[in-house]
Amino acid sequence: MRTDYCGNIDVSYAGKEVTLYGWVNKRRDLGGVIFIDLRDREGIVQVVIDPDAAETFELASTLRNEFCVAITGLVCMRPDTQINKEMKTGEIEILGKQLSIFNSAPALPLDFNQDNSEEQRLKYRYLDLRRPLMTQRLVFRSKVTAAVRRFLEDGGFLDIETPILTKATPEGARDYLVPSRTHKGQFFALPQSPQLFKQLLMMSGMDKYYQIVKCFRDEDLRADRQPEFTQIDIETTFLDAEDVMAITEKMMRSLFTQLLNVDLGDFPTISYAEAMQRYGSDKPDLRNPLELVDVDDIVKDSDFKVFSGPANDEKGRVAAIRVPGGATLSRKQIDDYGKFVGIYGAKGLAWLKVNDLSKGVEGLQSPILKFFDEISITALLEKTGAQTGDILLFGADTKTIATDAMGALRLKLGEDFDLLEGEWCPLWVVDFPMFEEADGHLYALHHPFTAPRDSNIEALKANPADALSNAYDMVLNGVELGGGSVRIHNMDMQATVFKLLGITDEEANEKFGFLLEALRYGAPPHAGLAFGLDRMVMLMTGAESIRDVMAFPKTTTAACPLTNAPGFASPEQLAELSIATVIKADTKDSEKGAE
Amino acid sequence: MRTDYCGNIDVSYAGKEVTLYGWVNKRRDLGGVIFIDLRDREGIVQVVIDPDAAETFELASTLRNEFCVAITGLVCMRPDTQINKEMKTGEIEILGKQLSIFNSAPALPLDFNQDNSEEQRLKYRYLDLRRPLMTQRLVFRSKVTAAVRRFLEDGGFLDIETPILTKATPEGARDYLVPSRTHKGQFFALPQSPQLFKQLLMMSGMDKYYQIVKCFRDEDLRADRQPEFTQIDIETTFLDAEDVMAITEKMMRSLFTQLLNVDLGDFPTISYAEAMQRYGSDKPDLRNPLELVDVDDIVKDSDFKVFSGPANDEKGRVAAIRVPGGATLSRKQIDDYGKFVGIYGAKGLAWLKVNDLSKGVEGLQSPILKFFDEISITALLEKTGAQTGDILLFGADTKTIATDAMGALRLKLGEDFDLLEGEWCPLWVVDFPMFEEADGHLYALHHPFTAPRDSNIEALKANPADALSNAYDMVLNGVELGGGSVRIHNMDMQATVFKLLGITDEEANEKFGFLLEALRYGAPPHAGLAFGLDRMVMLMTGAESIRDVMAFPKTTTAACPLTNAPGFASPEQLAELSIATVIKADTKDSEKGAE
Repeated sequence: MRTDYCGNIDVSYAGKEVTLYGWVNKRRDLGGVIFIDLRDREGIVQVVIDPDAAETFELASTLRNEFCVAITGLVCMRPDTQINKEMKTGEIEILGKQLSIFNSAPALPLDFNQDNSEEQRLKYRYLDLRRPLMTQRLVFRSKVTAAVRRFLEDGGFLDIETPILTKATPEGARDYLVPSRTHKGQFFALPQSPQLFKQLLMMSGMDKYYQIVKCFRDEDLRADRQPEFTQIDIETTFLDAEDVMAITEKMMRSLFTQLLNVDLGDFPTISYAEAMQRYGSDKPDLRNPLELVDVDDIVKDSDFKVFSGPANDEKGRVAAIRVPGGATLSRKQIDDYGKFVGIYGAKGLAWLKVNDLSKGVEGLQSPILKFFDEISITALLEKTGAQTGDILLFGADTKTIATDAMGALRLKLGEDFDLLEGEWCPLWVVDFPMFEEADGHLYALHHPFTAPRDSNIEALKANPADALSNAYDMVLNGVELGGGSVRIHNMDMQATVFKLLGITDEEANEKFGFLLEALRYGAPPHAGLAFGLDRMVMLMTGAESIRDVMAFPKTTTAACPLTNAPGFASPEQLAELSIATVIKADTKDSEKGAE
Repeated sequence: MRTDYCGNIDVSYAGKEVTLYGWVNKRRDLGGVIFIDLRDREGIVQVVIDPDAAETFELASTLRNEFCVAITGLVCMRPDTQINKEMKTGEIEILGKQLSIFNSAPALPLDFNQDNSEEQRLKYRYLDLRRPLMTQRLVFRSKVTAAVRRFLEDGGFLDIETPILTKATPEGARDYLVPSRTHKGQFFALPQSPQLFKQLLMMSGMDKYYQIVKCFRDEDLRADRQPEFTQIDIETTFLDAEDVMAITEKMMRSLFTQLLNVDLGDFPTISYAEAMQRYGSDKPDLRNPLELVDVDDIVKDSDFKVFSGPANDEKGRVAAIRVPGGATLSRKQIDDYGKFVGIYGAKGLAWLKVNDLSKGVEGLQSPILKFFDEISITALLEKTGAQTGDILLFGADTKTIATDAMGALRLKLGEDFDLLEGEWCPLWVVDFPMFEEADGHLYALHHPFTAPRDSNIEALKANPADALSNAYDMVLNGVELGGGSVRIHNMDMQATVFKLLGITDEEANEKFGFLLEALRYGAPPHAGLAFGLDRMVMLMTGAESIRDVMAFPKTTTAACPLTNAPGFASPEQLAELSIATVIKADTKDSEKGAE
């Protein structure tokens, strides 16, 4: 029987015989001595095969990488010169006396010593996961879920499962459909979130609910998207936004303390409006010290129409970013930043270099200097806090474009100038607008079940565009970890919000009739939040993609190279499900309709 | 802010002011006094509205069942005559001083005081779950999963998620399919279990895995089946059957101690052969003291061909059940048991009443007495242990029919004669055959990844029908709680088993190629087990259906009356998925093929 994991054998075992099971991480033959690095989930230990154990020695000489073996031997202190204090097992080695081989392995299709293609890594995922870095990530993920569960369970939250085979949910992304065999021509949808079910559970009196649950979105995948992803889903009854924020902030702090030995401290809270104004983002990375400074008031009377136009337009914005040390930027570099903001629709990027502040206007350099009087220039320098050696970069456009472009530029400059300070910067963003307006329509900024801060229905109807929602997002290092809201628990309010969103009575009844009905029967006030587990673990482990913190992710075309999913179904299966595949040569046609 | 749950207010709160949130379980007006039973997740507390608080009193008189309210008041001891020691809150009541209404409720579509139709209960599930019995079941389920998780996590098991969108798995039931949008004409399958993924995780070196995970089978539903159900899924590396049984038995004992205060004791282990012989079942209910007694040796020389035929046939069986006190059975009752065994294919049921043992053959009564000599009769009485007042019932048929029929009869008699002893009778059943034979084909009794006890491939090939598998089932009170096995970790053995099962190389490669490939690369020995969570919770809570321990179950036609799932998809959705619905008037036709 195994004594312990390889990675746990340390000086406390010195002088003892141990039996270890694991994989050959490496075999080295040095001057007639065979060294085996034996690996398991917890780490690697060095084995020296006892040259006096002839049979074992002979067998050991057949070992190759990734053979699965059992080794029994004596734990010895390493010679002083070979001690590796970086490893838990670095002070000892095993004098291997007995060896047995559970299974051999041919040369591997993955080379653990270099990067392998993602396709190859996914096809041989069971090998890729043997790499200590990947193993540790899955171990860490398991620790995260265990810690989250204990925190919530100790807080009186019930783990309640909601259906996977359900009805289309209202998150707005594309649903995965599942044909029903018993109800011909009909389909289940896989849930994009358990939103409505968790609200119903609050109406059932379950009081505090949580679930770590798979959600599904059939979207075109980007680096950080997967067809199925995992949410830490939370809902509470009778609590307000501050209560839910306090509980979940405490949970996150406790996670970081337990698992990373990091004290996140109290999370600051800022409003959506402030976040957009200062950082040009609703999920600002506060490690980045750069800020957007509004200069509309200073430039609005200038002759420079590019600035004065937006500055005088209620829907325009002129914002500056001061980049410390940025005066060294070349014309080419500035031009590249100009192209970068172009991605966000900005037409250009004005700039002003502060070569020597003590020389007044003489010390400045900028193509737009001529448009401004000295008072304005002084005001610009003062408001932005410009110092010698800095550059000021200006965005002037519609509020949306200027904010987006300068927000993105802020992030890029922060990286390019290596400005990020502090390792972890969490915050809450609150006071989101209820609605976004586009093409004369209102859209829910969160989802249509989010309560407005002001529960007055008439006020909401009168001025929906200005209404704030009772929603809150938890942001860490520029990543939205989770978001939630107080939900509407009043049927009339819910019906009003549906109406404002342009959802007809018929559509509301068809899609959410059961929710409206449920709100009639003593529905309690309730509020909740959902965290993206994959993203959280990715951030905490420093992985670069959520694929690296999932055991069996899909490719960017939503396929699994390991199992070859998806695959073809038999005609019998399709017939039973009352469906047929319809593959048209002309994709445009097939986009128009199925028949 | 809420002081505590309603159900937690006891004498320790006496004299204190509390604020409680919950639902009006009942309002009674007695002699000008208003009593409110206020209910939340944890229980019910009695509130007496203070008649001196005029405004509150007036508002309270508008309360109806299931209004959601907040009540602030003083905790008082009840008058002695009104104390209810059965309830935690039964010694106190709240003198209600302030009341506010979160939400009202019209008359309910469910009557909590009587049985409601299942359809209605599911349509208004959020109300049905408010019934204390249903609430308690979900609370209990959450405690079960929490306890299981802690037990396994403390034992070094990692919680690792496996995909829901995957490839058809080999459990043999019908798969739910999900059309792929990006791979036109192809489908994902929802997993019937994470079997292959958990084996791959062991090959990844994860060592100990668990997951509480949704599984899916598109089968015609019976009382205890649901389209989606939940498994406690466990897999371990380097452990043998006994180790896995020890860990999971300890887990189950710990669950029962923690949650039901029941000591299950050590589980007995019996072989499949013994279970079939003594109990006529591979999941015997050991609370039932009745046993099947083989009497082939005694009757094989008799003239009664109904007995001597099967007794002399290697594939036949003659088994008796002695029913204490059964001599009182009427002819009609015996005939009904005869019809009952007919369901299982038995052609009849012979019987022998022991009216008075002291009178020898004179004291016996049976239509078949005449076929046997006194020595045989004495032997029958002795072997079955018959006493005065008993009846012996005999099944004689093929081994399969006699065993099934008498096994079922044993259960029925146990109930009818109220013979069940003890509350909880767990056991392990082991030494299952590797294969079942039918129509000249071999079928896997567990699944095709189950290892035989004897790892000799040639021996298996030579005599597969007699091979025993290294599988184990945990049985409680006649219900299979979970089953597992040591898995095959040798590629040649796996290929051999596939071949014996009639799986062609092509099919094996197409379906399980990745598993066979994975077995090449240092696959470790591994073994695991899966429990049916729904059934476990049903058993532990005494619920009659797994639907009563799931928050949002489906009907027996796999529909959800609450959300109206499944539903129709739009032509645009279907076109995007490259499928069309094909509904044929003639079902027979549509069963033949889709095109």
